[in-house]
Amino acid sequence: MTERVYNFSAGPAVLPLPVLQKAQEEFLCLPGAGASVLEVSHRSKAFEPIIEETEANLRKLLNVPDNYKVLFLQGGALLQFAMLPMNILKGTGKSADYAVTGSWSKKALSEAKLVGDFKVAADTKDSGYRRKPSLSELKLDPNAAYAYICSNETIEGVQYQEYPTIGDVPLVCDASSDFLSKPVDLSKFGVYFACAQKNAGPAGVTLVMIREDLLARCDAQLPSLLSYAKCAEQKSMLNTPPCFAIYMVKLVTEWLMNDMGGLEKVHDFNKEKAALLYGTIDSSGGYYTGHAEKEFRSIMNVPFRLPSEELDKNFESEAKAAGLIMLSGHRSVGGLRASIYNAMPREGVVALCDFMRDFAIKNVK
Amino acid sequence: MTERVYNFSAGPAVLPLPVLQKAQEEFLCLPGAGASVLEVSHRSKAFEPIIEETEANLRKLLNVPDNYKVLFLQGGALLQFAMLPMNILKGTGKSADYAVTGSWSKKALSEAKLVGDFKVAADTKDSGYRRKPSLSELKLDPNAAYAYICSNETIEGVQYQEYPTIGDVPLVCDASSDFLSKPVDLSKFGVYFACAQKNAGPAGVTLVMIREDLLARCDAQLPSLLSYAKCAEQKSMLNTPPCFAIYMVKLVTEWLMNDMGGLEKVHDFNKEKAALLYGTIDSSGGYYTGHAEKEFRSIMNVPFRLPSEELDKNFESEAKAAGLIMLSGHRSVGGLRASIYNAMPREGVVALCDFMRDFAIKNVK
Repeated sequence: MTERVYNFSAGPAVLPLPVLQKAQEEFLCLPGAGASVLEVSHRSKAFEPIIEETEANLRKLLNVPDNYKVLFLQGGALLQFAMLPMNILKGTGKSADYAVTGSWSKKALSEAKLVGDFKVAADTKDSGYRRKPSLSELKLDPNAAYAYICSNETIEGVQYQEYPTIGDVPLVCDASSDFLSKPVDLSKFGVYFACAQKNAGPAGVTLVMIREDLLARCDAQLPSLLSYAKCAEQKSMLNTPPCFAIYMVKLVTEWLMNDMGGLEKVHDFNKEKAALLYGTIDSSGGYYTGHAEKEFRSIMNVPFRLPSEELDKNFESEAKAAGLIMLSGHRSVGGLRASIYNAMPREGVVALCDFMRDFAIKNVK
Repeated sequence: MTERVYNFSAGPAVLPLPVLQKAQEEFLCLPGAGASVLEVSHRSKAFEPIIEETEANLRKLLNVPDNYKVLFLQGGALLQFAMLPMNILKGTGKSADYAVTGSWSKKALSEAKLVGDFKVAADTKDSGYRRKPSLSELKLDPNAAYAYICSNETIEGVQYQEYPTIGDVPLVCDASSDFLSKPVDLSKFGVYFACAQKNAGPAGVTLVMIREDLLARCDAQLPSLLSYAKCAEQKSMLNTPPCFAIYMVKLVTEWLMNDMGGLEKVHDFNKEKAALLYGTIDSSGGYYTGHAEKEFRSIMNVPFRLPSEELDKNFESEAKAAGLIMLSGHRSVGGLRASIYNAMPREGVVALCDFMRDFAIKNVK
């Protein structure tokens, strides 16, 4: 393959072509800098405006309240799974509530267990992680240090359509795979975080939005880079941040604002693409089976299966030959998965739907 | 500035032009992948060979012994300052020895203090951090969990010409600013680590070489990404690694092997450039003053001063206008600093030396 094709990877994932083109154009020399963005000091006049504008763009797109810090960290969601209890659970004498709704919230819980006390507020394992819990199902401790949810389970393709309202306990959300895909009322959350490599940019930077009052919980004895408070105090510049990944987030957020018209429009666009794909599944007469219950279907990640594992494999390899790549399901669950993030063009989804219809006709017995 | 100029940044720092050109060329589409290296799954056939080849290149260039793991982590040296004591000090019932020789080893000690017990094996503060301690000066505890040094102090420009031989206590080295600049006998070290953004690539990945027996010290209760043992077990793929930064390290290591001819030749090249620059300082009749004592001068970072702060400032701005950028000293010490890493061409150093001679003639009273 020497040309770009439709890439349905769950992450790192497709980026907007105009963003890649802009980055390519100024790759050897950032305008005015005399050097590549990869080569300039993070404390230079060439880079400081980049991190500042990226934060401003995120604040604008997500309407981030003034009493929230926006942090640019490293280590992906996995490090956040540990930093959260290290910062806002330890020392409180409380436990944290976890709603387990799939692989990523389960992983978050397993990391939290290494650090502090926790309670399982819900676990939808019985459903095969095909749905989110209802508010009445959530066993919430009114004294919890925080309550944890994963807004969109990337592997199982289940998504909260509405976030639970849980009173005064801070709600913490891993939004890695639906970050920037729709408007969100951030004031509902104590901490809202996401790795970049789905909708926001390349792997290497993690975006953390945290309500300022929670910073008071951070133990002064935490190592600097593991302390939200210390990172916030130094505006994510305790040391060299992942400059290039941040620069890419700047370009992506500019694209979201200027080319896409903001998150309301992005949401409509994503809903339309998801409707096309789920429509193809639902009208296949059972040839394709989606994983999630309809009410909880993710508009970002669409896991599905064919009538047999052999057909799954054939589908994947024939799709690849047709220029539709990275469609295999997560190694932990198998099957197929189409991730249709912001940067997936409508044409890509249409091409996949056409391929699915053709494949079914050809292979149905 | 719309063109590339000579960039003396201490980090992120100049990268080899052929490396940038290659990355630019395949920025939209990695050959055979159908997508950018920024967009492919880290567990795909497009990316897995990249991290494997990068490790193989590092092993070849540095002649890494078989009983060492090579890890690709995040968080820069600052996170290593904490991970080290978290992994190989805590639980040993021992303390760690720190040789403080400048800003970065001081910082490493301040992070270690947050985690465990330590002893100051030496502190060259009296010299204004102009030299490294002699072996006889080092007060080493034969029962220490490890002894810590910084091979090259980026801010003060002091460098160990030879590493201390300290017996059975594992020697730990922060080699961030002279990593890959010369051959190193890694078997002298228990842990040898470096952030990438000086000689190895862009900011966003940290290279850690660790002797396998030390992994047995890592507490199973450490959060996954903070455990050397867990990272080693999963070959740095516990979660999405910083793919693009690793890809850039691959290109840089290829350049070091194929274009530069390996680390012996790179070392000669670096010594020659440093000799040119220090020669200009030493032959200026005292107009320029280097910071480090001659015996400990870094061949990577050359901090120097003019007769007054005003002249420092004028020098910097006139140099910038002449296409010699990022020459200001670290904000903590002031003055000027020329970083002349592997990727700084000889022509850049010659241009700086010429500029220095002209500036001195023009401004001497």
